[in-house]
Amino acid sequence: MNDMTVADAAPETGQERKAPGRPRNAQADEAILDAVLALLSDGQSAAAISIEAVAARAGVGKATIYRRWPNKEALLIEAVRAMKGPLPELAGRSVRDDLIALVEANRTPNAQRNGKITACLLPEFIKDEELGRMHQAVVEPRRDVTRQVLRRGIESGELRADLDVELTLLMLSAPSMVQAMLPWSPRVPDEGFAEKLVDALLRGAAA
Amino acid sequence: MNDMTVADAAPETGQERKAPGRPRNAQADEAILDAVLALLSDGQSAAAISIEAVAARAGVGKATIYRRWPNKEALLIEAVRAMKGPLPELAGRSVRDDLIALVEANRTPNAQRNGKITACLLPEFIKDEELGRMHQAVVEPRRDVTRQVLRRGIESGELRADLDVELTLLMLSAPSMVQAMLPWSPRVPDEGFAEKLVDALLRGAAA
Repeated sequence: MNDMTVADAAPETGQERKAPGRPRNAQADEAILDAVLALLSDGQSAAAISIEAVAARAGVGKATIYRRWPNKEALLIEAVRAMKGPLPELAGRSVRDDLIALVEANRTPNAQRNGKITACLLPEFIKDEELGRMHQAVVEPRRDVTRQVLRRGIESGELRADLDVELTLLMLSAPSMVQAMLPWSPRVPDEGFAEKLVDALLRGAAA
Repeated sequence: MNDMTVADAAPETGQERKAPGRPRNAQADEAILDAVLALLSDGQSAAAISIEAVAARAGVGKATIYRRWPNKEALLIEAVRAMKGPLPELAGRSVRDDLIALVEANRTPNAQRNGKITACLLPEFIKDEELGRMHQAVVEPRRDVTRQVLRRGIESGELRADLDVELTLLMLSAPSMVQAMLPWSPRVPDEGFAEKLVDALLRGAAA
């Protein structure tokens, strides 16, 4: 996950509490990323968040943060990557099942918190092109997994030969995103949402 | 449009430039709402926008704003209402045509600017429950129009009898919203978008 982390040069030692060994680092990483996400979900804008505030909330020194991330932008993007979590393992049997798993992966118990965080970051992503590119680098590989499933479905004959892959990708991802960001989006129950969305998309609305 | 506007008590007069008559008011209203939208689309957060800044940008005095809107929240919501513009006249012939018109109504030439504005307002809507309720009061009547078209389609047999109206509403509205707010959303060309989305939704993706 921490492929953007600046490697920590401190050697490992046997000491439990004070040594900057790897287990301690992983714990600090998690505390720092959690602190960023907590500040954002409290409604702080990305612009308003300072390294000082993150350090205070995580209970680490500023230097601990700067050893790991060169700047606030890198830290924000790493927090987004951590928030999104790993992609699900796809069974690869039916395209329907894989699409349901992919939609469900975006509807974690933290979806409301994550939606709030995304909403608070969006203005920053739009204003700061570099931050926007970094965010895109996090989301594109995830989208590629869905694109591959859709292309597999076209080849296997489970999906229409003339399917618009990008439009279908947008139709699969946008509803959960809007629901998570806007508390008063259309009232579709969370229970069974992924299955209902995928089936509605597959079967069509026409009689 | 200005149903939330505090009525201006100044009497109409024959003077052209200085009298606070109705035509002058309408012009000032437009300048004020445009100023709010311009500040938001510059990337200012709703929290950061002051009545002073709006007055300066609109070229009016603060009192002119307070005569019309009791507070910043009311002004922000009125600007959102103005941004959304009127709903399209629906031909009422086929459900397909009406749904295309409704999707197109959210894809004005200003869609990118409006998406940026919505993105900058979202954190505020989430943080401030009262503002959230006011925003909901703007969007719900618009959604009701789409709900009515979908229910008409179920009754006429153009749509499936078991159609989930709320889910379909979300599937019709979320893609344009995400595309407008997130510049790096899936790359679906704007040309013919509404027709493609409605047809994908009607026909389904399954072979």
